[in-house]
Amino acid sequence: MRDNCGCTRCRHPATLERILDPLSVPSDLDAASASITDAGALQVVWQPEDHVSDYESDWLRAHRGGTHARSQRDPAPVTWGAELSEAMPGADHEAVTGDDSTLLHWLRLLRDTGVAVLRGTPREPLSVLALAALIGPARATNFGEHFDVVSKPEPNSNAYTALGLLCHTDLPNWERPPDYQLLHCLENEAKGGDSILVDGFRAAAALRRREPAAYRLLTQRPIDFRFQDRESDIRFRAPTIALDETGAVKEVRFNFAVMDAISAPAERIGPLCRALRAFAAVVRDPTLECHYRLSPGELLIFDNRRVLHGRAAFDPSTGRRHLQGCYVDRDQLLSRIRVLERQAPPQ
Amino acid sequence: MRDNCGCTRCRHPATLERILDPLSVPSDLDAASASITDAGALQVVWQPEDHVSDYESDWLRAHRGGTHARSQRDPAPVTWGAELSEAMPGADHEAVTGDDSTLLHWLRLLRDTGVAVLRGTPREPLSVLALAALIGPARATNFGEHFDVVSKPEPNSNAYTALGLLCHTDLPNWERPPDYQLLHCLENEAKGGDSILVDGFRAAAALRRREPAAYRLLTQRPIDFRFQDRESDIRFRAPTIALDETGAVKEVRFNFAVMDAISAPAERIGPLCRALRAFAAVVRDPTLECHYRLSPGELLIFDNRRVLHGRAAFDPSTGRRHLQGCYVDRDQLLSRIRVLERQAPPQ
Repeated sequence: MRDNCGCTRCRHPATLERILDPLSVPSDLDAASASITDAGALQVVWQPEDHVSDYESDWLRAHRGGTHARSQRDPAPVTWGAELSEAMPGADHEAVTGDDSTLLHWLRLLRDTGVAVLRGTPREPLSVLALAALIGPARATNFGEHFDVVSKPEPNSNAYTALGLLCHTDLPNWERPPDYQLLHCLENEAKGGDSILVDGFRAAAALRRREPAAYRLLTQRPIDFRFQDRESDIRFRAPTIALDETGAVKEVRFNFAVMDAISAPAERIGPLCRALRAFAAVVRDPTLECHYRLSPGELLIFDNRRVLHGRAAFDPSTGRRHLQGCYVDRDQLLSRIRVLERQAPPQ
Repeated sequence: MRDNCGCTRCRHPATLERILDPLSVPSDLDAASASITDAGALQVVWQPEDHVSDYESDWLRAHRGGTHARSQRDPAPVTWGAELSEAMPGADHEAVTGDDSTLLHWLRLLRDTGVAVLRGTPREPLSVLALAALIGPARATNFGEHFDVVSKPEPNSNAYTALGLLCHTDLPNWERPPDYQLLHCLENEAKGGDSILVDGFRAAAALRRREPAAYRLLTQRPIDFRFQDRESDIRFRAPTIALDETGAVKEVRFNFAVMDAISAPAERIGPLCRALRAFAAVVRDPTLECHYRLSPGELLIFDNRRVLHGRAAFDPSTGRRHLQGCYVDRDQLLSRIRVLERQAPPQ
């Protein structure tokens, strides 16, 4: 409580950051007296420091029992399967940019469901960066601040071919894979190329039910990933399914294209490969797959640390297919939601 | 081994990424025959698939026993204390930009020691972004792609005042705090304002030795952090000291200025506050503190997830003090080292 004194000697009035040096507080500190001020705050006099702190009743209520009130916690994720093919959540660009409560609704969808489409966006190159700015600045990677998903003559990623792509998460070879991925559809005339999305949280739950031993292995044993081209050589090893402190799934890394040889004692490699096959089979379960064909002017956004994405092969001789993509941080998305909630009631 | 076949049907010849669908491989796969080719590769014929894979001897050696050869692993960190005040590691800007082996040496310093200075940099605004590009693109945060550390009229962070700053890591209130911080000194005429650096890995080891119970608590119990201003409200909770799978310290988050009220059952808060005080005392141990006064034209870079930084108060009436800063990713730094090592022998 002493550390949370809000007086101007303890907290800077402009920055709102703490300026109190915690080691300046005597270690034999005690609340010598407590009273209620005329404004209804709890006033504590700390001794031997002789420091006076006021605590508002809202703050005290939110921190009672030492635990934040429930409204400060993120709601549980809303998982989904094939039914999303017919009911892709989304919003209109005009509404989201013109009305803060629609923007807030759309950001909450992205936080809780992990996927949403924005319709009627400007079909201009680099719009994706302006659309990202609804959340925050783009996060640059070895593929640049933004990237063009087109069939290229000298591709450095399978994404830049016309090949089908198995459902995967992007950049699992990074210690810190990007959080949210934006894909802005500029052209989609080619035959094929439909998008496929799978909720990795639901897939992990299905694996846990069907093959608990495989699930356990994938939560415990790291898999090696590596991407290399002329400019980069980016490697990281991490478990396929990462759990939080409560044992809930918090992150999925799954990408055969950039999986490296597994670095582990030889006797562990067979079971780990079989567990990965089991998860790959679950990820291809039709009841989990959402199929969606992006139309020009649509922006698809999804949580890249939860949602796996893929695509059917396309035939570049039948027309152009051009998506522009970038990444943004979850920290920024959650911050935008909280700032918008200052004006709007929480859910 | 089957997954690591390098033939053009399994791995795309241009992208070098896997195109093999692992589920297309029969689960009763076996190596029906193995022989040595004229070029010295191991050739395996897989059945019932009837697929032929060649494995180079270098690859086999590097992966023998299922474990990567040691040279692919990062070396252990080199920890330091007050002696660095007189021996700050660094390099000259001209040498680093003109000679790849000097650049490689400097990047390895940053990786292993976690801190280095670059001398003789251009004293022009925004040079810091060009200097970051020696490693990779800047990582934007709520403070922008770059930020100016000066005493401002309406500061939204204590960094933008003339106050002294206790040693801390930046942005512990983010799920993903920035990896490396760059601070480019443009002006430093004011009285005071010397920089202080502490190796968080050494500080954690000292805490473990002196107060093992406090160390254990700080590795286990999350601390709540929060930054808020008009544009942002960014919160995260994480342990002060994070350990990797082997139990070694991999990350330190320590910042009283943006510490929020701790969210925990009431009976845990006292012990946690005492453990934080114990760590704060260790961090202020003079044998751990490196003092360094930045000169105009110097760029200080340090690992923000390991090295704590602070500064003495300065008197803005005695002269200007202006640093420009930004952040870059460790993934990019390690990648630069590996690409440079293609031409140079490993350490």
